[in-house]
Amino acid sequence: MDAIPFDTRATGIRERVALQGFMHLVGAQIDELAPGSATISVTRRDNLLQQHGLFHGGVTAFLIDNGTTIAAATVLKPGQGVLTAEYKLNLFSPADGDRLICRSQVVKPGSRMIIVAADVFTEKDGREKQTAVALATIAVLDQASMPPLRQAGQVANGR
Amino acid sequence: MDAIPFDTRATGIRERVALQGFMHLVGAQIDELAPGSATISVTRRDNLLQQHGLFHGGVTAFLIDNGTTIAAATVLKPGQGVLTAEYKLNLFSPADGDRLICRSQVVKPGSRMIIVAADVFTEKDGREKQTAVALATIAVLDQASMPPLRQAGQVANGR
Amino acid sequence: MDAIPFDTRATGIRERVALQGFMHLVGAQIDELAPGSATISVTRRDNLLQQHGLFHGGVTAFLIDNGTTIAAATVLKPGQGVLTAEYKLNLFSPADGDRLICRSQVVKPGSRMIIVAADVFTEKDGREKQTAVALATIAVLDQASMPPLRQAGQVANGR
Amino acid sequence: MDAIPFDTRATGIRERVALQGFMHLVGAQIDELAPGSATISVTRRDNLLQQHGLFHGGVTAFLIDNGTTIAAATVLKPGQGVLTAEYKLNLFSPADGDRLICRSQVVKPGSRMIIVAADVFTEKDGREKQTAVALATIAVLDQASMPPLRQAGQVANGR
Repeated sequence: MDAIPFDTRATGIRERVALQGFMHLVGAQIDELAPGSATISVTRRDNLLQQHGLFHGGVTAFLIDNGTTIAAATVLKPGQGVLTAEYKLNLFSPADGDRLICRSQVVKPGSRMIIVAADVFTEKDGREKQTAVALATIAVLDQASMPPLRQAGQVANGR
Repeated sequence: MDAIPFDTRATGIRERVALQGFMHLVGAQIDELAPGSATISVTRRDNLLQQHGLFHGGVTAFLIDNGTTIAAATVLKPGQGVLTAEYKLNLFSPADGDRLICRSQVVKPGSRMIIVAADVFTEKDGREKQTAVALATIAVLDQASMPPLRQAGQVANGR
Repeated sequence: MDAIPFDTRATGIRERVALQGFMHLVGAQIDELAPGSATISVTRRDNLLQQHGLFHGGVTAFLIDNGTTIAAATVLKPGQGVLTAEYKLNLFSPADGDRLICRSQVVKPGSRMIIVAADVFTEKDGREKQTAVALATIAVLDQASMPPLRQAGQVANGR
Repeated sequence: MDAIPFDTRATGIRERVALQGFMHLVGAQIDELAPGSATISVTRRDNLLQQHGLFHGGVTAFLIDNGTTIAAATVLKPGQGVLTAEYKLNLFSPADGDRLICRSQVVKPGSRMIIVAADVFTEKDGREKQTAVALATIAVLDQASMPPLRQAGQVANGR
């Protein structure tokens, strides 16, 4: 897609995600990045749950929001940036595991929009069970038109 | 809809939401409950932001997830419970304000599914601007078939 | 929005929609066009129904697909064209009336994407009942980059 | 899943779909039925197109509406019926081929809701290209609670 090696681009993505205060608050991590896909996850903590002791739907939504946008970022060309335009998710099984994992895969890259699918799984006693599925549209923008990035210091201080 | 006064039901809803660890982590609050509608919001903090200093899309998604389900809960009959089945959201303006407010309104109540619409606004210098819109399907269940509620003590300890 | 009077633009929209063979096959009509909104509808015929004698969900989906895109077209600037990017619809009441009416309203215009909401109603014995709700994203394109329009003769012959 | 052989159930599905007037109007056909999946398609005709000579988005939506519901019907238990609750589709490539094919696959069966994914392809010069993707929620109902089926004669006369 371009002359910049994927490892270099992956490092850039990780650096931008590290500037997200909410990523730190939730305690999510990037597990894997590849051209066209991304896996992010979070480990069960009491303050990620809802009233029945399951992962809160909002945590699943956050993983989908961020995971699909990160997957889209892996297929950008130099000078492009991404912005989440919209997504739809179905929550269909109790998210009762020890870890919540979101795997996102680009369905269709594009110069204006990138379509990304995501599957969310809970891991319990070493076994995975799918709990949600999603479909997202990520807008591709000229990076120059986007607001400036925060400074790493701001994020660290902000926690 | 039933003989139980709305205030009593609203208190029950607030108590169940108070058992959500993630609601506390995000720091969201219920601003208003009425039959068929709910307003929840969150005040800007550094750890709710993304890399450009805007509210993270995952925070908007969480408010929609929780707000639409809470709005659905306001129209339940005794013995019924709610579970978020699916939703779709469009993020269309930078969420750059001091507060993020989600107003949810039941479009169609039902004995099996409740359809809820939500509008999300940022408040900046006292003026509101809409930043997102959503449409959700909330499943209606027999409360007896749902997992038991957590104890208030568990949540408090879990923070 | 621009120097071209809305009536002139509305005529252009009606001419382009008249080139849609599928609009003729379904037998839908544009009832109303205003800046930011559009109403289209179809009258009950046997070949628009499903197995229980209700309007087929695909007819509702067609009205939403076309109605939201037409509503978006009413807010375009000269030289812009529209393309349906995605939508989500909820079908929540039996579409058992004599007429199916889709009212679409622009929620957020934009230079790249236009967000449109739609409500679908059936009319029965002169009374309306809402049967569906939808949320759509319409892409804004440079008209010059779009494929050429069909000729009016082609469409007429094609029926 | 039950004692009724799949072939018998598939015949029942085909019979009910044959009662859909709109299926005949569009001219779509069921190409394949298997437990958990369905393929339906339509051949290019002038009155299925939009103003640029591509398959109309409403045709894609119809295939998704019907295809996902048919796929859900393949996993029902005796006495159950299906009703399309909601879906979301992304249209991402010009549907310019000779045939439009919708392949639907159950993601998650359930006693109340069945989640189905669909991929839509155009076939041109013997090659397929994906043009749309969708995610649907199909409600499972007690067949006894659904309106009666139309008679085959009604449909034939209605064309």
